[in-house]
Amino acid sequence: MQILLTNDDGIYAPGIAALKQNIQDLGHVTVVAPDVEQSGVGHSITFSHPLRIREAHLDNEFIGYSVNGSPADCVKLAIYEAMKNKPDVVISGINMGTNVGIHILYSGTVAAAVEAAIMGYPSIAISFEISGRYDDIHSAAKVARDIIKRIITHKLPKGSLLNVNIPSIPPDQIKGIKVTRQFAHDFKENFEKRIDPGGKAYYWLLGTDKRLHREEETDIHAVNEGYISITPLLYDLTDYTMQKKILDWDWKGIVS
Amino acid sequence: MQILLTNDDGIYAPGIAALKQNIQDLGHVTVVAPDVEQSGVGHSITFSHPLRIREAHLDNEFIGYSVNGSPADCVKLAIYEAMKNKPDVVISGINMGTNVGIHILYSGTVAAAVEAAIMGYPSIAISFEISGRYDDIHSAAKVARDIIKRIITHKLPKGSLLNVNIPSIPPDQIKGIKVTRQFAHDFKENFEKRIDPGGKAYYWLLGTDKRLHREEETDIHAVNEGYISITPLLYDLTDYTMQKKILDWDWKGIVS
Repeated sequence: MQILLTNDDGIYAPGIAALKQNIQDLGHVTVVAPDVEQSGVGHSITFSHPLRIREAHLDNEFIGYSVNGSPADCVKLAIYEAMKNKPDVVISGINMGTNVGIHILYSGTVAAAVEAAIMGYPSIAISFEISGRYDDIHSAAKVARDIIKRIITHKLPKGSLLNVNIPSIPPDQIKGIKVTRQFAHDFKENFEKRIDPGGKAYYWLLGTDKRLHREEETDIHAVNEGYISITPLLYDLTDYTMQKKILDWDWKGIVS
Repeated sequence: MQILLTNDDGIYAPGIAALKQNIQDLGHVTVVAPDVEQSGVGHSITFSHPLRIREAHLDNEFIGYSVNGSPADCVKLAIYEAMKNKPDVVISGINMGTNVGIHILYSGTVAAAVEAAIMGYPSIAISFEISGRYDDIHSAAKVARDIIKRIITHKLPKGSLLNVNIPSIPPDQIKGIKVTRQFAHDFKENFEKRIDPGGKAYYWLLGTDKRLHREEETDIHAVNEGYISITPLLYDLTDYTMQKKILDWDWKGIVS
């Protein structure tokens, strides 16, 4: 089993190290990850500057390849150039912080998995809630490993993507697994306006209190309730309901 | 009618200027756009540094507000902070280059419209093909204006997003409008490997020849055939078919 492992927190982040350590027994793991943190980059790709792949070491030990690009760049470059054997599964994470609701759209972690899915590989994005309650990434990685193993057993189809979010509570207190859908509403994230010493305004984006969102069967609700959420994601954004509706609109006379 | 106009090519790009000029008669246009080009940033948001809004001028004339962030940042900041009246419609473009197929996922132009849709506004993303055949942005802007006017007439529902792509041919040769779906396959974009003067490898991402993709009813096919494509897009990425499937998988025994 060939496993490509990436993330958006960068190759030296604790989440990817913990996950790598825990999935060694599942197959041959190749790490190709951004050289620096890429959180919030969304599904960006790099065509304005050339990409480089470098061997990365930690404590004199080879840990994988770093790329001066986005998580999606890493997946593309890993599969086209860095890996001798094509991956059987692509895993992205563990991200520090959930990727639920519309944050899925901003997430480099999910974007890496989407890129893999587009390229036809089964992929899994894994994120771990940061809540201040419990932050042991090593026990989260053990849970992640068991989920990955189960997914592999069930043979995730090519081009499928599962977005996994683990709540920040001790594993023995996690209530179970819920297959969920994306919470698809605005988080109403606002800005904090501040004035700099020169008298000019600047704005910090403020996070949302995710515990406020209580819509049943959604990813965010499952995690809030102490469950692991697993949401399958698509990269076809077409709104088929709306498509049928606007087909009936009068489009005549705009051009010839 | 309050119109928020943004883009990802930056506030000084010719596409946004041409569109602004052509939609003045449709309502009051407020421009809030990135201070520099943001192509390929996808749906990125900025929380690692503070954002600033500055008045932008061209030839001593006020043209709008520039933001040191992504297109999605511009929409958020415009609506929360910069605009006195909330927009009735948010328009992103005109982008130089189509945003079709999986390129929709990488597109800052589309991301701005998605952000607006999430916030509950009707939104329109507009892109103009670059093919070398025909590049008159002013006539494309006239066509875009007519499409926008028609969409406004039909009252695009709140939170809906239409992704419009205009082929690079003279308006009188455009064959018409097609309501399409996203071409949801890999473009198989590869890398060109080069060696720097120091003997080290670097990689340039290569574009795809979009004319090769011939799947009927898709955005890319419509534009290739000389039609304007209009694809409604969703920001709920849940794969509901797959969701039903994995509900039957055995998830027992992973955690308590």
